[in-house]
Amino acid sequence: MIMNFSQNLIRFFFLLIISTLITKPSFQQNSRHGTALTNYLNIAKAITDTALADAQAYTILKELCYDIGPRLCGSPQAAAAVEWSRQTMMKLGLENVHLQPVMVPHWERGKIAEAAIINSSIVGTVPMAISALGGSVATPEAGIVTEVIEVQSLQEAARLGKKAQGKIVFYNRPMNPKTMNTFAAYGNAVDQRTLGAIEAAKIGAVAVLVRSVTTRLDKVPHTGLMQYGDTVPKIPAAAISTVDAELLSQLIQQEKNVRVRLRLDCQRYPDLESANVIGEIVGTEKPDEVVLVGGHLDSWDVGHGAHDDGAGCVQAIEALRLIKILGLKPKRTIRAVMFMCEEFGIYGGPAYADSVRKNGPKHIAAIESDRGGFAPRGFGVSADAKLVEKIKQWEYLFAEMEAAHIFQGGGGPDISPLNELGTVTIGLMVDYHRYFDYHHSANDVFEAVNERELELGAATMAILAYVLAMEGI
Amino acid sequence: MIMNFSQNLIRFFFLLIISTLITKPSFQQNSRHGTALTNYLNIAKAITDTALADAQAYTILKELCYDIGPRLCGSPQAAAAVEWSRQTMMKLGLENVHLQPVMVPHWERGKIAEAAIINSSIVGTVPMAISALGGSVATPEAGIVTEVIEVQSLQEAARLGKKAQGKIVFYNRPMNPKTMNTFAAYGNAVDQRTLGAIEAAKIGAVAVLVRSVTTRLDKVPHTGLMQYGDTVPKIPAAAISTVDAELLSQLIQQEKNVRVRLRLDCQRYPDLESANVIGEIVGTEKPDEVVLVGGHLDSWDVGHGAHDDGAGCVQAIEALRLIKILGLKPKRTIRAVMFMCEEFGIYGGPAYADSVRKNGPKHIAAIESDRGGFAPRGFGVSADAKLVEKIKQWEYLFAEMEAAHIFQGGGGPDISPLNELGTVTIGLMVDYHRYFDYHHSANDVFEAVNERELELGAATMAILAYVLAMEGI
Repeated sequence: MIMNFSQNLIRFFFLLIISTLITKPSFQQNSRHGTALTNYLNIAKAITDTALADAQAYTILKELCYDIGPRLCGSPQAAAAVEWSRQTMMKLGLENVHLQPVMVPHWERGKIAEAAIINSSIVGTVPMAISALGGSVATPEAGIVTEVIEVQSLQEAARLGKKAQGKIVFYNRPMNPKTMNTFAAYGNAVDQRTLGAIEAAKIGAVAVLVRSVTTRLDKVPHTGLMQYGDTVPKIPAAAISTVDAELLSQLIQQEKNVRVRLRLDCQRYPDLESANVIGEIVGTEKPDEVVLVGGHLDSWDVGHGAHDDGAGCVQAIEALRLIKILGLKPKRTIRAVMFMCEEFGIYGGPAYADSVRKNGPKHIAAIESDRGGFAPRGFGVSADAKLVEKIKQWEYLFAEMEAAHIFQGGGGPDISPLNELGTVTIGLMVDYHRYFDYHHSANDVFEAVNERELELGAATMAILAYVLAMEGI
Repeated sequence: MIMNFSQNLIRFFFLLIISTLITKPSFQQNSRHGTALTNYLNIAKAITDTALADAQAYTILKELCYDIGPRLCGSPQAAAAVEWSRQTMMKLGLENVHLQPVMVPHWERGKIAEAAIINSSIVGTVPMAISALGGSVATPEAGIVTEVIEVQSLQEAARLGKKAQGKIVFYNRPMNPKTMNTFAAYGNAVDQRTLGAIEAAKIGAVAVLVRSVTTRLDKVPHTGLMQYGDTVPKIPAAAISTVDAELLSQLIQQEKNVRVRLRLDCQRYPDLESANVIGEIVGTEKPDEVVLVGGHLDSWDVGHGAHDDGAGCVQAIEALRLIKILGLKPKRTIRAVMFMCEEFGIYGGPAYADSVRKNGPKHIAAIESDRGGFAPRGFGVSADAKLVEKIKQWEYLFAEMEAAHIFQGGGGPDISPLNELGTVTIGLMVDYHRYFDYHHSANDVFEAVNERELELGAATMAILAYVLAMEGI
């Protein structure tokens, strides 16, 4: 029996070791890279090789997605994500790891999100998959049952006038599939989600349904923030899937007085304190000048928040790890910041900029990744043309990974408040065709992220941050 | 009751209509494009817009994946795929739709593919997920139970000499994650799969296990073709997942005499007749000069064969549809070819080239898509430098979709036999980081393909094919 017990013990520990080992690729990376790191091209190659062969960003993204999960600001999971980030940074040996307090909104979608087309003469009663928009009020407990009017724009809603009284306004303008850059297409459709409830309330509507702002035709609703006006009633608002939006639209064309039942029990609570999480590699010569890399730690409360913006967070941490593990000593400080509460109205970024305004240190540049963990293509730079040209001189460092497109215009939601403090803000630009398949929905899970693409994004951030920390700007 | 019946009938037909409608995006494309098609840039834009807004390649890929499924050459599903291609081409109104007979091998993996690490003192008996390599012989009915020896290369296997007698040789060299282009990394690892059984048989081994040739660490085995030598015994060969390869390797390091049980019942049958499928838009001025677009219709018998190479097939068909629907009239003939049996040794391509050699018509250029339905990046051209330069003049047509990288070197497995007939062969180059996650495995399913990326690949093929059909080369 003793024999069996010790055998089992050995087996247990061996399996433990194995399970650790098999989460890493078998090409192991020495902590020092073989090639002499004599110039930026060698350094870029060493950073990229290490990212690809010892892919820790992917490993910690899995932790964030599975051990923490989705993390709406104000939620217990967001608090867990803050502590996880702090511990992850400390384990990696980053310096000055600390939290920066940020007040954030607290809203919960509740347990109930029901909608159905009811008593249609054609399809009868058909449930629809919906997701309350972020910030929406609840419906009355009995729900809302009323006619739906479809519009394609805020302007068209405004023109409805009294016809909308007591009705649900249904915004159904799709993202334009012909627009090559999906972020531009998103920008041209998202006003329905953000401002739709205000316009609908003005004309006496009692609720709003919005076609999910996604390029895909599927059954998954995509949520996102919405706003209320001060002078009009707050009416409930929810996203419906694109498939349900097509069905509803077809029915409205075919029969009069299509009615929908809607029930939401979301609720707003008092604001509470959360935090940005900060860790550094302190510069050897100018420690008081900072190059920031970051993403936002909060996500929507569906899926894993893997691309939005778990990817950006783990890439920022990975960027510092890559620099550290290769023994590189940047002259200026490189700082990773996990910003809290981008999704619910951008709170962590402005709080961070306020602190810099009051207490410093000087931020020469900030790089944000908030466009998903896809293959990097380059950087969009918010700075005057001369500075953009200066950064373009390093495009050759990104040529092998096809990420050498550096251009004027870009930045990121959390870092742009630093712009007015003279910081050059830089957005990591990535392949954009898939992002809105996942964005703000149950589709945004760890499995939707490709390890190599994620790591290459981290490598590009590490390379640019290092060069800027050495050369200044 | 009559009333109810007719209501149900109406409902049925309505749902039928709805279900058809909701498989298409709601931005509908007129058969004629709004913009005047006065120059190649307008035409490129019209082709791209139509591909993105009326994405038929994605729709027919879903048919191929779900209605036909995986289609190993020689299988009933491959025959179904031939007939499906023929009918699809005819429905689209392509001209001269016909089949070209090709003799192909016929091998079946059978019902049994079992492997397990047995009686390990550390982990006991652990089953492994395996996939017989294409062409493998069966094991004896009782299976093989013997020790496993790990090597990293064919050379290392050769050096084992007598030590391998009666053993299983386990090839475990991973794809190098540091190699940026995954196709290059694949090329540097795949010799273990293709030639491993020959080397192992030379030294008296009784079977071969090969680490799956993939960039991912997961539990899914990736199959692929293997070869036998004429002068050495044919021994069974199977791929194991990368996770199992890591486990097996760790065990071999920890204990002596790790033993594996292997059982396969695959079988080779006599060759049989299958077909390439061909359809055209006949040229208005030089119908006897052909620009070919194509992919291979067969796939491995796992997953859906969605990226490899369902994507290439539907892109080729879509390229012709786009040209047709826009009312474009190419001077030379544009021909779509679905090549049969690339995976099992490349049969359809050489048969096609033989026919061209004997009977014409002259093929000025051939474009193949066989690198997955990912975002296009450009074209690799097999031709002399002057001709490559000529094609590079059209790079500007692909700039907006970031697919403007035209370079010397490339082609495709099925079209390269046309090279020696003076045809310029051109490979569609795409993002390559994800391909080997799916390649030759159960992961290669329809859902792994992004609609926009697939369609953009079809658009690039259509644009280049059209320009070449107008300008010649």
